[in-house]
Amino acid sequence: MRIVVINTGTELLLGDVINTHLAFIAREVFELGLRVEEQRTVPDGRAIADALGEVFPRAEIVFLTGGLGPTSDDITRDVVAEFLKVELSEHAEVREAISNRLTLRRIPMPASIWRQAQVPVGGEVLPNENGTAPGIYLPTNVNPLVASPHLFLLPGPPRELQPMFHDSVRPILRRIVPAADKILMRKFRIVGMGESVVEEKLGSEVLAIPDLELGYCARPGEVDVRVVGAPASVEKAARVIEAKLSEAIFSRQDEQLAELIVKTLSARCETLAIAESCTGGLLAHKITNVPGASAVFRGGFVTYSNEEKIRALDVSRAAIEKFGAVSDAVAIAMAQGALAHTGVTHAIATTGIAGPGGGTKEKPVGTVFVALASEGHPTLCRKVFFPTDRETFKELVAQQALDLLRRRLP
Amino acid sequence: MRIVVINTGTELLLGDVINTHLAFIAREVFELGLRVEEQRTVPDGRAIADALGEVFPRAEIVFLTGGLGPTSDDITRDVVAEFLKVELSEHAEVREAISNRLTLRRIPMPASIWRQAQVPVGGEVLPNENGTAPGIYLPTNVNPLVASPHLFLLPGPPRELQPMFHDSVRPILRRIVPAADKILMRKFRIVGMGESVVEEKLGSEVLAIPDLELGYCARPGEVDVRVVGAPASVEKAARVIEAKLSEAIFSRQDEQLAELIVKTLSARCETLAIAESCTGGLLAHKITNVPGASAVFRGGFVTYSNEEKIRALDVSRAAIEKFGAVSDAVAIAMAQGALAHTGVTHAIATTGIAGPGGGTKEKPVGTVFVALASEGHPTLCRKVFFPTDRETFKELVAQQALDLLRRRLP
Repeated sequence: MRIVVINTGTELLLGDVINTHLAFIAREVFELGLRVEEQRTVPDGRAIADALGEVFPRAEIVFLTGGLGPTSDDITRDVVAEFLKVELSEHAEVREAISNRLTLRRIPMPASIWRQAQVPVGGEVLPNENGTAPGIYLPTNVNPLVASPHLFLLPGPPRELQPMFHDSVRPILRRIVPAADKILMRKFRIVGMGESVVEEKLGSEVLAIPDLELGYCARPGEVDVRVVGAPASVEKAARVIEAKLSEAIFSRQDEQLAELIVKTLSARCETLAIAESCTGGLLAHKITNVPGASAVFRGGFVTYSNEEKIRALDVSRAAIEKFGAVSDAVAIAMAQGALAHTGVTHAIATTGIAGPGGGTKEKPVGTVFVALASEGHPTLCRKVFFPTDRETFKELVAQQALDLLRRRLP
Repeated sequence: MRIVVINTGTELLLGDVINTHLAFIAREVFELGLRVEEQRTVPDGRAIADALGEVFPRAEIVFLTGGLGPTSDDITRDVVAEFLKVELSEHAEVREAISNRLTLRRIPMPASIWRQAQVPVGGEVLPNENGTAPGIYLPTNVNPLVASPHLFLLPGPPRELQPMFHDSVRPILRRIVPAADKILMRKFRIVGMGESVVEEKLGSEVLAIPDLELGYCARPGEVDVRVVGAPASVEKAARVIEAKLSEAIFSRQDEQLAELIVKTLSARCETLAIAESCTGGLLAHKITNVPGASAVFRGGFVTYSNEEKIRALDVSRAAIEKFGAVSDAVAIAMAQGALAHTGVTHAIATTGIAGPGGGTKEKPVGTVFVALASEGHPTLCRKVFFPTDRETFKELVAQQALDLLRRRLP
């Protein structure tokens, strides 16, 4: 199946927004054994119709994103209907869904809002759980007089498009895509090891397996190893990966480290507190992003200043003066202070120099200590060094701290 | 000048890498008064030639990225030479630059490396300070027998492409672009108002201004309004936007709300503490993402449990029992507790029901109270309602809390 993605949106062509749709859609369809063959970005306007004219003859599935909202620059729906020579008609259920959504939120409803309830005749509505504009699926040759591929109109905001893809687009793709050559994919999530180190460990042994595609995807502090191919080859590769990386693999599913920790602690009826200096709230944010976090997470301390470390966590002023706020002594005292104050099972702490300022010769920008205090266990401290930009630094440190805890949980 | 960007690279179409080239190039050329009219991503291979065939007739400048490296899938140079019917010839200076670079790094030089020294005849070399493959500029109609636009071949890795663009591409663009119709762009960031409400307020008055393009870009809790066009039209539109949206505009630059707050507090020598329940650390995370946050941010409390609200912030148990943890009384007590404990100028607090669980008939999922306590001011509390997914909920609440503080800062 030849797949083309067309992204509309003047903001993309002005460089205001980075386009994440291609990467998202490519990964989604890959799991169904499909690949995107081409992508283009066009401005809102006539260019949409020109792009349809060029790609329709060579595509079997087209994903068209953006321009489904209520404002005057949202014209995708109209352009597509005109191109396919089909009428737009108001969809009663969509109108009701929009009305319910906005009434619930007590948002006023200007007349322009109802444009979003217009659906090309023959189209199937893809409900939007996170916004007002629904997606639309138009089957191939929806108007028998105009040759057209399977066409999906999807909303521009990623937080609307992504759940819609999972809930509504995937089932349709499964229906329309022939059960082709069966391929298998397995994915392993690795923490605390760079991409090239992972590749070196797996090395030639995985590459030598026939009928197998090996891929890496690196994010701050994490690497995904992906093997795709014939089932026997994938299973063979999986055994090698398990043997070589063992402990460093934290998930064999699409699971976040924070998610794994909340689940594990929850199952063990254990609780967590977090004392953050250099991660500045990110650790608590990651944990509280997980539904059900309130069952395990008691409280967080973002002690950005020395005074707060002393006041809120009982870190001794002498330790800060002697060893500095970025030191193993202070990281340990922060974790133990959080444990003592909140009475939880585990407390993790971070202290480090994010930069750009604050580095010294002995402790350059990027120096970090993470600590873990647990009821009935010795307190652990790990020193790491991440000289990088501020946001990546916070990500890397948060992953280290979570990994320290993960390794203590059986 | 009609500009088209073509990105090559199978990794982009597999979703392994997010394409940042379009956003980068768009912003660069915008500063010269130019806009990208279209962008496409094609795989390494014949598809490159097909794309050139389609876009050459309608483009005046084409940027083609990727496929200039030493490996077998790097064929951009060859495809372009073949398409333009020009010879490739080895460029002595490029060969020497590659040799020097690899010798310095003690990297072995396989024969394939010298492919990168091949330059189409008539091409101008764009030196690469951060890699081995140079960029190439081919002037319009470099082969008089084949009509072609100005064509720039640029390397795929952003850390090679970006400095090359600054150092070598910009000067050429300044040379070839006529000091044409000058266009202007202004951007306004709005907080706490939906996209369609913003449009209704601006309404027909802005749309009626000639030679003006009006665009919207919505993120959780924020909307950007963008006007592009002839300078007089843009200034006229800006006056309407200022008058209609006034207080809701928090920035006229590309500035985050957290950034604005850190800057403003810093200039006023004021300090901040944060007490979070439902935002779970996100507020502190946003503030600490801003370089220089340590000058204003003293500490954060992530009091996820009632016990922590009582212990760390002196919220009274009676208030929690009488009004519930999600109430104006508790939000106010949290903000005042944070202010009193840390001795800062301002303290913001959030408490709400993120869901999926925890809702009641009186306080359904999505109910939120944000509060602001400031030295020498009455404590404010705002009730809002955001029934949405957990992560968007946290974003929306964080923006409300920051907005409450912003409005207090003159």
